Amino acid sequence: MALPVLADSVRIADDGVHILDRRVFPQRREWVCCATLEDVARAIEDMVTQSSGPYFAALWAMVLAAREAESDPRPRTRLEEAGARLVSTRPTNNHLRKAVDRVLARVDERDLVASATEGARCGEAVYRRSSRVLGEHTAALLPDQGCALTHCWPDLYLVELVRALQEQDKRVRFACTETRPYAQGARLTAVTLAEMGVDTTLITDSMGAALLASGDVDALVTAADRVTADGHVINKVGTLGLAVAAHAFDVPFHAMVQAPDTSTPSAEDVPIEYRDGAEVLAAAGVSEPGIHGWYPAFDVTPPRFVTTVVTDRGPFGPHELDRYEEEL
Amino acid sequence: MALPVLADSVRIADDGVHILDRRVFPQRREWVCCATLEDVARAIEDMVTQSSGPYFAALWAMVLAAREAESDPRPRTRLEEAGARLVSTRPTNNHLRKAVDRVLARVDERDLVASATEGARCGEAVYRRSSRVLGEHTAALLPDQGCALTHCWPDLYLVELVRALQEQDKRVRFACTETRPYAQGARLTAVTLAEMGVDTTLITDSMGAALLASGDVDALVTAADRVTADGHVINKVGTLGLAVAAHAFDVPFHAMVQAPDTSTPSAEDVPIEYRDGAEVLAAAGVSEPGIHGWYPAFDVTPPRFVTTVVTDRGPFGPHELDRYEEEL
Repeated sequence: MALPVLADSVRIADDGVHILDRRVFPQRREWVCCATLEDVARAIEDMVTQSSGPYFAALWAMVLAAREAESDPRPRTRLEEAGARLVSTRPTNNHLRKAVDRVLARVDERDLVASATEGARCGEAVYRRSSRVLGEHTAALLPDQGCALTHCWPDLYLVELVRALQEQDKRVRFACTETRPYAQGARLTAVTLAEMGVDTTLITDSMGAALLASGDVDALVTAADRVTADGHVINKVGTLGLAVAAHAFDVPFHAMVQAPDTSTPSAEDVPIEYRDGAEVLAAAGVSEPGIHGWYPAFDVTPPRFVTTVVTDRGPFGPHELDRYEEEL
Repeated sequence: MALPVLADSVRIADDGVHILDRRVFPQRREWVCCATLEDVARAIEDMVTQSSGPYFAALWAMVLAAREAESDPRPRTRLEEAGARLVSTRPTNNHLRKAVDRVLARVDERDLVASATEGARCGEAVYRRSSRVLGEHTAALLPDQGCALTHCWPDLYLVELVRALQEQDKRVRFACTETRPYAQGARLTAVTLAEMGVDTTLITDSMGAALLASGDVDALVTAADRVTADGHVINKVGTLGLAVAAHAFDVPFHAMVQAPDTSTPSAEDVPIEYRDGAEVLAAAGVSEPGIHGWYPAFDVTPPRFVTTVVTDRGPFGPHELDRYEEEL
């Protein structure tokens, strides 16, 4: 399988962490070089990368932090502060906390940089392996041929889903939404699917319900930024509308997440990130006085609209996520 | 009340029909001058104007056709052919047929241009009066203060709804969707609402369900291009998704139409216009090989997701539209 460029878009080097700039991809293939931990934190805040990108960026930012902390009398404290800074960049997804924790768990003050590097490498391997298994479980839920609708940019989960479909010899077409205002669906998902040789159709965000009602879609499949213990799916804004429409027209909705967040009981425990409404106006090219923008970055899909939460331990109904811990 | 520019955006003059170019509004306020009937037909096909714009354009195009037919031995036949050409431009909405019929009903071969002009003037007055009453009936369904979500550009229905709200001293904020790929919601609706002094919030098409789920919206209010006798609402693509979400979160959906199309039994009798998928790709700036676009211009909302069909004879449930004819 040809690996799409987005499958490996955060890299460590001597001069810092290099991050493919998803804001301008695919029109331009530019990398942002972050020399310091603070540079990485700002890049995440500025949406240079998103979806699983911040996870990888945070792993390697912790290595930068280790380099910066080497001459510090209290290096672990410095690294914990660095981790807190990274986690603060985007509050909704808990990928960042996981990345930081995975590096901190390996850190040895006697060999700071080497141990942090080992932690980051390990964090990367764990994530990739888990995504691969997740892709296989999700592919098993799809028909031998048909069409899946997706939203936003499910990143490695999508890459691994497509890989697994190809390995299972399933011919599944994909439809993807534009995903305004950043257009990750058009710029990242559609382009990556086409790179992987998948039959790809692009629609605007407004067309999802019509497509689901048409009978041409076999499943709605998205990633989830978080799934709470009681089965609420938090993902890119727009997921809720598609899930409600899928439910109305009897199309199953499979939400992919490596693991449910069983430490978060329900949706009210998840802080939803609200971005500046001016970003919506700017994307639409509207600058008339008297018009505000509203920009929740994520929405919450209640379990009644979720068919399956697919995890790296297999598929679960949204009300049986407590079984995840038992399935080792 | 300050009349917004879009409330009077098709005008007849000696040199032809002048149509405000909604494709570039509000960035540029340019008028397209159509010297012939064929120019008007092409302008409608090319989306220079839409929503109720084509109705007015067709009325006045029939006057151009009358001017062209004056020296013809069979002027009525020429006018009927002109009408057929106009009706063929966009198949889903039956505004065009109504405009043509209203002019043809007045045409007198002994005084072709004057009678056609009288027919167009009358057609314009009927439409404006009917929109005004429709706005009043719709305003009566909204609370004294609150928020209405709308989609696309409901044109005069919206202008008259806002006028009626202001006359009824109701303080209703509006949220409007961007309405990709043409962004009528951002460019026409938001700008017109702001011109009329309404508190206006713009969202992307993907955010409608999140807003409806938030509890902040009192009603979803859209125009309808057509409502079938059995209560299916055909409107700009995206209406269906919002209506399904409104239903899921107990927000009423009021669809505004001057009159239901009681001659059309159900949705399968309405031809849905599919535009070139390349328009979706172009709007998203995607040009990679292997990616198709899909572009239904309208979608169909089944009556189970419709609360009220508001008409110029008052509000009806979607299953009681046969009463419309009795309410004279």
